[in-house]
Amino acid sequence: MRTAIVLCIMLLFGVGQVSAQSDEAVIQTIYKSSLTNGNSYSWLDHLSNKIGGRLSGSLNAQKAVEYTKAELEKLGLDKVWLQPVMVPKWERGAKEEAFYETENNKYRVNICALGGSVATDENGLRAGVVEVQNFEELEKLGRSNIEGKIVFYNRPMQADLISTFNAYGGCVNQRYAGAMEAVKYGAVGVIVRSMNLRLDDYPHTGSMGYGELPVKDRIPSAAISTNDANRLSEDLKKSKNLQFYFKQNCQQFEDVLSYNVIGEITGREFPNEYIVVGGHLDSWDLGDGAHDDGAGVVQSMDVLRLLKISGVQPKRSIRVVLFMNEENGLRGGRKYAEEAKANNERHVFALESDAGGFTPRGFSFDCSDVVFSKILGWKPLFKPYLIHYFEKGGSGADIGPLKDENIVLAGLRPDSQRYFDHHHASNDTFEHVNKRELELGAATMTSLVYLMDKYGTNPIPESTNIKD
Amino acid sequence: MRTAIVLCIMLLFGVGQVSAQSDEAVIQTIYKSSLTNGNSYSWLDHLSNKIGGRLSGSLNAQKAVEYTKAELEKLGLDKVWLQPVMVPKWERGAKEEAFYETENNKYRVNICALGGSVATDENGLRAGVVEVQNFEELEKLGRSNIEGKIVFYNRPMQADLISTFNAYGGCVNQRYAGAMEAVKYGAVGVIVRSMNLRLDDYPHTGSMGYGELPVKDRIPSAAISTNDANRLSEDLKKSKNLQFYFKQNCQQFEDVLSYNVIGEITGREFPNEYIVVGGHLDSWDLGDGAHDDGAGVVQSMDVLRLLKISGVQPKRSIRVVLFMNEENGLRGGRKYAEEAKANNERHVFALESDAGGFTPRGFSFDCSDVVFSKILGWKPLFKPYLIHYFEKGGSGADIGPLKDENIVLAGLRPDSQRYFDHHHASNDTFEHVNKRELELGAATMTSLVYLMDKYGTNPIPESTNIKD
Repeated sequence: MRTAIVLCIMLLFGVGQVSAQSDEAVIQTIYKSSLTNGNSYSWLDHLSNKIGGRLSGSLNAQKAVEYTKAELEKLGLDKVWLQPVMVPKWERGAKEEAFYETENNKYRVNICALGGSVATDENGLRAGVVEVQNFEELEKLGRSNIEGKIVFYNRPMQADLISTFNAYGGCVNQRYAGAMEAVKYGAVGVIVRSMNLRLDDYPHTGSMGYGELPVKDRIPSAAISTNDANRLSEDLKKSKNLQFYFKQNCQQFEDVLSYNVIGEITGREFPNEYIVVGGHLDSWDLGDGAHDDGAGVVQSMDVLRLLKISGVQPKRSIRVVLFMNEENGLRGGRKYAEEAKANNERHVFALESDAGGFTPRGFSFDCSDVVFSKILGWKPLFKPYLIHYFEKGGSGADIGPLKDENIVLAGLRPDSQRYFDHHHASNDTFEHVNKRELELGAATMTSLVYLMDKYGTNPIPESTNIKD
Repeated sequence: MRTAIVLCIMLLFGVGQVSAQSDEAVIQTIYKSSLTNGNSYSWLDHLSNKIGGRLSGSLNAQKAVEYTKAELEKLGLDKVWLQPVMVPKWERGAKEEAFYETENNKYRVNICALGGSVATDENGLRAGVVEVQNFEELEKLGRSNIEGKIVFYNRPMQADLISTFNAYGGCVNQRYAGAMEAVKYGAVGVIVRSMNLRLDDYPHTGSMGYGELPVKDRIPSAAISTNDANRLSEDLKKSKNLQFYFKQNCQQFEDVLSYNVIGEITGREFPNEYIVVGGHLDSWDLGDGAHDDGAGVVQSMDVLRLLKISGVQPKRSIRVVLFMNEENGLRGGRKYAEEAKANNERHVFALESDAGGFTPRGFSFDCSDVVFSKILGWKPLFKPYLIHYFEKGGSGADIGPLKDENIVLAGLRPDSQRYFDHHHASNDTFEHVNKRELELGAATMTSLVYLMDKYGTNPIPESTNIKD
């Protein structure tokens, strides 16, 4: 009996176990706090429904800066401040119009200007259409077939890829570079199939660029809904003389002043080592940016709050950074990294949430193999929360500029199946975010930040008490 | 060089690898077929939007029997048939009405009769309210506090449980047994907080029972939306004389004839060994039963179709069984098992999908440890599809009656976070099912059926070529 008791005591309090058990308990507290007392959903409600779409340089973006700063100030952090950054300002203007005409019929279609596109002239643009799947086809067709026409890029996202981000990656060059490629062959406009795996009527915007093309040579570029893309493609096969018309009223302005919003809990042991958790405060203008990236913003804010209410006092300085202008410029991410470098701030870890507020599945990491092995040792701590995805890969656009040989970068990886149903479209709205899924994401991020802060990101552990 | 080539050939075609590679390729084909050429979503569209809610004994349930039989007949299976089964018939009748009155105000509230409940009398029921969290409180309050009152069960689902099914399990006794417990103390009616983790206005129905209680002693029982439950609870604290009124018009009829719908691909090597894959064709009446369990029905149908179009010719006989009357009787599940036993059919594996059409995470298994070890050896084959959850636990209600020492039972385990937002409520509708999530579930089920058929469920493998 005595032996049994001693054995129990050893099992319960043995040195090798204390640390792991304590981590388990802390992580349990973090998840419970998020699911029963989280604030992410309430913040998201305000950002989405009281403010709305937050395109860089807009009044709404400024409101979001003020709101999130004020909310961070209520959390009792050690510092909250704004980091000025100049951002591009592009406006959609009046809603776009588009239709096409065949010999017999006229069909209205759902389009939206791509971010950064020039407008059509005030009477709109009317021309024949050449459909292509990729730039190679464009080259093959050549100027003789393309000059004076609208190029219609219609390569769909590949449905059999399990990660919808991979499917997006396989298509998005049509959107970003479609105009600068088509203009080489004398095209007068570009219509791109929306980056959406679903068949529906929503056009999906997103950034496009003209490279070095002089302003006078730029051609208007718009996205078309997947349903309309399919119908247009069918009708192009039947009707040789199909004419497409569109009118868009967008405008590029001079850069304007905006801000990254930053809050900090200063570290107790290593105040000069920084851990960043963040998302981007700007969004596209069509929806209210609830998934992209309102979710990442409010989850990141709640990471600091959840650490506090779970009784974690970090060794290192933990910063939440709400980056401005991820969507059409990445100016906020670049500015933050620039200043960090200028101030010789040693950043050891950065985590971004910018893949929607869906059920979290894990993280992707950008770090050395030896550090990754250390991180994999924490994986069992996440199993009760069904967090299973720990893979090397990308992290997040805003934290990318922080990359150097010392920092570990990571991205939260939520379930990706529904993300592109909403991405950059008018249905990226609050009601499509599930409260629990959002909260689970915040808890998952907080738990990783807790472990990174506690054990550091050196391959040689500060403590060897981790149970693998 | 030669050695290298030989080594490559050995690596590529070595006996130990061929089988595993071939499984990988088959499973890849299955997922690709489901995501690019699946039929589950189209069937679900019909079941949900053309037929709708399919409560046992209803005209819609009969339409669903006819539709799914006809669709299975188009698939070129070896057999399709109906298995007769007598089922309960309960009807909701005209929509329920409810309100409560305090000293100063009158509030309409959202309720729905629980399945199997008796009606109120035609003038409705009006009484004071006693709120309790559980049966222990009821007992403590006793007859003196309860007689002549409506008992209001208001224990919420526990938000910090990661599996929402566990949270449901912790609450559902209020719904099922609330009336038979309350009547012991002279209660005249029962109102139950909806089994829903979200705060909203939807009342969620579900089955309840009276045990051996004579019909004349039965009291009406209804669910109230979570928002209204919270307000009622608040107002009960303020208003001593709060009076609750409700009227419901439901009715229990004699049992009626219905059917399980069954299709079979007859096995080539072991035609007398059966593998069952299924869901339940009946649903509650409030929504269109898209998640519960339209999703499981159409996924199960597609398992047989996906096997065929992926070129799999099963060794064993694979049956899809669309069970009738899971929700309020389990008659279909019982009947199928009864007949299987009467006909001495050797069932080796049964898989049910009845947890919604959400992104699949894995399976729970009901089998011996030694068989479970064998199954765990297949887990790496599922990793590319982010299927990670292989645990022992429950399977599915309809396949439960098949349980004996020889059969392996399993349940598909999709992400559970949103399930109870819709479960048994009028928002369990087609537009809340995502096509890709549904298709991933069908592919995941098909892949497991493929492996179970190929390698059998004996702990001693028929083939030892499986890579663990």
